Amino acid sequence: MADTNTMILSSTIESLIESKKYSTLKDIFVTLRPMDIAIVLGELGVKRLPLMFRLLPKELAAETFIEMDPDEQQLLIRGFSDAELKEVVDELYVDDAVDLIEEMPANVVKRILKTADPEMRRTINELLNYPEDSAGSIMTTEYVSLRPDMTAEEAIKRVRRGAVDKETIYTCYVTDKNRKLVGYVTLKSLILAEDDTEITDIMGTDTIYVTTTDDQEEVANTFSKYDLSALPVVDKESRLVGIVTVDDAIDVMEEEATEDIEKMAAITPTDKPYLKMSPFALWKARIPWLMLLMVSATFTGLIISSFESALAKWVALTAFIPMLMDTGGNSGSQASVTVIRALSLGDLEFSDFFRVVWKELRVAVLCAISLAVVNFVKIGLVDVLLMGNTSISVSINLVVCITLAFTIVVAKLVGCALPLLAKKIGFDPAVMASPFITTIVDALSLLIYFQVAKVLLGL
Amino acid sequence: MADTNTMILSSTIESLIESKKYSTLKDIFVTLRPMDIAIVLGELGVKRLPLMFRLLPKELAAETFIEMDPDEQQLLIRGFSDAELKEVVDELYVDDAVDLIEEMPANVVKRILKTADPEMRRTINELLNYPEDSAGSIMTTEYVSLRPDMTAEEAIKRVRRGAVDKETIYTCYVTDKNRKLVGYVTLKSLILAEDDTEITDIMGTDTIYVTTTDDQEEVANTFSKYDLSALPVVDKESRLVGIVTVDDAIDVMEEEATEDIEKMAAITPTDKPYLKMSPFALWKARIPWLMLLMVSATFTGLIISSFESALAKWVALTAFIPMLMDTGGNSGSQASVTVIRALSLGDLEFSDFFRVVWKELRVAVLCAISLAVVNFVKIGLVDVLLMGNTSISVSINLVVCITLAFTIVVAKLVGCALPLLAKKIGFDPAVMASPFITTIVDALSLLIYFQVAKVLLGL
Repeated sequence: MADTNTMILSSTIESLIESKKYSTLKDIFVTLRPMDIAIVLGELGVKRLPLMFRLLPKELAAETFIEMDPDEQQLLIRGFSDAELKEVVDELYVDDAVDLIEEMPANVVKRILKTADPEMRRTINELLNYPEDSAGSIMTTEYVSLRPDMTAEEAIKRVRRGAVDKETIYTCYVTDKNRKLVGYVTLKSLILAEDDTEITDIMGTDTIYVTTTDDQEEVANTFSKYDLSALPVVDKESRLVGIVTVDDAIDVMEEEATEDIEKMAAITPTDKPYLKMSPFALWKARIPWLMLLMVSATFTGLIISSFESALAKWVALTAFIPMLMDTGGNSGSQASVTVIRALSLGDLEFSDFFRVVWKELRVAVLCAISLAVVNFVKIGLVDVLLMGNTSISVSINLVVCITLAFTIVVAKLVGCALPLLAKKIGFDPAVMASPFITTIVDALSLLIYFQVAKVLLGL
Repeated sequence: MADTNTMILSSTIESLIESKKYSTLKDIFVTLRPMDIAIVLGELGVKRLPLMFRLLPKELAAETFIEMDPDEQQLLIRGFSDAELKEVVDELYVDDAVDLIEEMPANVVKRILKTADPEMRRTINELLNYPEDSAGSIMTTEYVSLRPDMTAEEAIKRVRRGAVDKETIYTCYVTDKNRKLVGYVTLKSLILAEDDTEITDIMGTDTIYVTTTDDQEEVANTFSKYDLSALPVVDKESRLVGIVTVDDAIDVMEEEATEDIEKMAAITPTDKPYLKMSPFALWKARIPWLMLLMVSATFTGLIISSFESALAKWVALTAFIPMLMDTGGNSGSQASVTVIRALSLGDLEFSDFFRVVWKELRVAVLCAISLAVVNFVKIGLVDVLLMGNTSISVSINLVVCITLAFTIVVAKLVGCALPLLAKKIGFDPAVMASPFITTIVDALSLLIYFQVAKVLLGL
C-alpha cells in the first residue's frame, strides 16, 4: 500500500519540480510522514535533493533527515550552512545523532559536534564510548525520570513539561536521590490515579532492565520476551543512564536476523540494503568465504585421489559421491541452523549441550534409517531395473546405503555440536552454519564411504 | 540476567512447596512479571502446576496464563471449574483469546466459547474468520476511538474511562460517524493540548493503516518502516475494525524470520520451540526435504554414470568434483539468501528483476575470475608441486578452473533469479534457497565440467 503511494507521488513531484510549483510541493510535503518524504526525496537524485529539502519546515526537515540514507545525509550536510546544520542537529534525539555520527566521515563529524550545544556534545561523546552493539550504544538519554515521593499530579506536570524532548513518555522511570533505578510508572497508571496518590504507591517494582555493556541481541530478546515498549539501561552501580525504545529494538532484531542469515550463507554481513551495494562491495562481502571454502575442499580432493585406484576398479561408486555429500550437507545444516536460531533467540544455552546432542542423535537415527531404506529400494528399482545400470551390484548398493546412514548421523551430530561449542568459546555460532559444516561433512562422508567399501567390497 | 534469576527462583520455589509455605509463595509471585511466573510454573511439572496457579490473584493469573505453553494451558483448563475458566477468559484481551483458541483442541474451544460473554464470543468468532497470518487474524478490537469534534478534555475522559480494557491508549484513532478512519491522536498530543482544543485540530491525518486481508509480514514491515507502536486495520470500506500492537508485530517478525531461516535450511517450519519438540516431530519436519533432495540427486548420479568411461581415463578429474559442486552451491546460496532476505524485508520487488540479475552477473564475474585464478595457482603449487600429484596436467587444471568460473556465474544467476520468479508466481521464495539451488547447480556444474573436458581434453 505505502509503496505504491510513494511511487505515484514521485512522478507527481517530478512534474511539479519541472514546472517550479514550489509552494504546492511544500503543501504536499507537510501532509506526508518523514519516512515517505525521505523515500521520495531519495529518488530525486543529488542535484535536486538540497533544493527540495529546504522546502521542508524545520522540525519536519530534521525528522526527514534522520530517515535518509547516509550518502544523502552527507550530501545535504556538505551543502548546509552552519546555521542550517545547527537547526537540524538541535532537533535530533541524541541516539539518532549518535547513529548519524557513526556513519559520517571524520570532517563531517567534526562539524556536527561543533554545531551541537555543549550538553548534547557531552552526551554524544559518552554514548560513542560504549562498545559497538552494546545496550549503551543504542540507548537514548531522553527519558522521563520521577521520584518516589512525587504525587501523580506533580508527575503529570513533569511529564507535560518534558514531553516535547523525550523519546517516550508512556513509561516513566522512578529513581532515588542517588539516581538508582527503583521502579517504573506507565502514563496509563498516572492518568488513572487520583491527583494526590504518591508515585511509590502506583509504581511497579519488578522492573526489567539491562546494563550498558549487555549485547544488543540480549536487549532485543528482552523486549520480545516481556512485550516491552521501553527498557531502562543502568550502569554498574545500578544507576539509570538511559532507555532503549521499542523502535530501536525492532531495528536491532531485523539487523541481527539479517546478520545471522548472511553468516549462515557464508557472507560477511553489512548494514547496507542490497540494492544500495555496488557489485564490488558485494564481491568483497562474499569472496573471502568462497575462497576459504574452495581451498579447504582440497582435503576432499586428496581423499578421492588417495582412493583413485579403487574408484577406477569400482567406477559405479563415483556416481553416488554427489548424493552422499549433498544429503550429508543438508542433514548437517538442518541441525546447525535450528540450533543457531534457537541460540540467537535465547531459547538455548551451552548448558543444554547434552540434551541437544541426545535429541539430535535420535532424530539422526530416524532420518538415517528412513533415508537408507528408501535409497536402497530406489537404487534397486530406478538405477538398476529401470535405467539398466547393471554395474551397481547389491554390495555396492549396500555400501552406498550404509555410508548414507552413517553420514547422516555424523552430520547431524557435527551440525548441532559445532554452533554450541562456538558459543561456548565466544565465537559467533552463525559462522558455523551450512557451508562450514558442509565442508567438514564432505570429508567425513568420503572417509566413511571408502572405509565401508573396503570392508564390504574388499578394495 | 532474567534467565539466571528465574533459575535461582525455581529452586527457592521448589523448597517452599516441599515445606508447604503457600502464603510465602503467594507473596513471591505477586512481585514477579507474568512471563517469569509462567517460566517458573512451567518447570514445576504437571502435578503441582494447578495448585500453584490457584495461588495467583485473579488478574495476575490471567496474565500468567496467556504466557504459558499450550500444553500447560490445556492442562489447567481441564482442571478449571466453569467459574474459574470464566475468570481467566474475562481478563483476556480478545486477540490473546483468539491465539489461545487456535492452539486448543475442539472440546476445550467449546468450553472457552461457552464461558465467554456474548460480545466477546461474537468478536472471537469474527476474528477467527480472517485468513491465517492475515492482519485481521492478529489484530485486537480493544482500541480507543475518538470523534473529530470532541475536545481534548472529553477525549481524555474517554481514554480514562476505557483505559483498563484497552490494549493501548497511547495512540487513539479518530473515526467519523460511519466508522471510517479519518486520523489518529497520540496521548502525548492530548495531554499537551489545551482542554478545549478540538480533536480535529490536533489529529494527524497521514495515518498509516493496513487492511484485514493484508499479510502479517507486511504488517511487521510497516511497523519497522514507520517506527509505529500501533497500526490500525480497516475493512474494504475503510472502516476501522481493529489495531495491531507493537508486541504482536514483534512476535510476527521473529516468527517470520525463523520460518524463512528454517525453509532456507530445508526444514518445514513449526511454531514450537526446539527443546519442546520430540525427536519424532523434528524428524517429520526434516525428512520430506531430505528425501526429495536425495532422490533428485539421482540426476547428478546419472550425469556421472554417463561419463564413466571418460572418468576412468582421466581419473584426476574425479577429485575435483566435490570442490566444484561445493563452490557452485555456496556461490548460488549467497545470491539466493541475499535476495530472499531482501524480499522478506520488503526491500526488493519482482519489478527489480533485471537490476538484480545485472548486479549479480557483475558480482559473479568478479568472483569467477578471482576464484579461478587462485585455484589455478593453488592446483599448480599445492596439488602438483607440493603433493606431487603428477596426473594433474596443465590441461586438466585449465578444465577445472574454466568449469569453476562458468559454474559460479551460472550458480549466482540461478540463485538470484529463482526466488524472484517464485515470488512472482506466488510461491514462497525462501523454499528456493540453498538446498534446492545446490541440487540444480550440482547438475549444471557437472554438465559444464564434462563439456569443457570434452573440448580441452578431447574425451
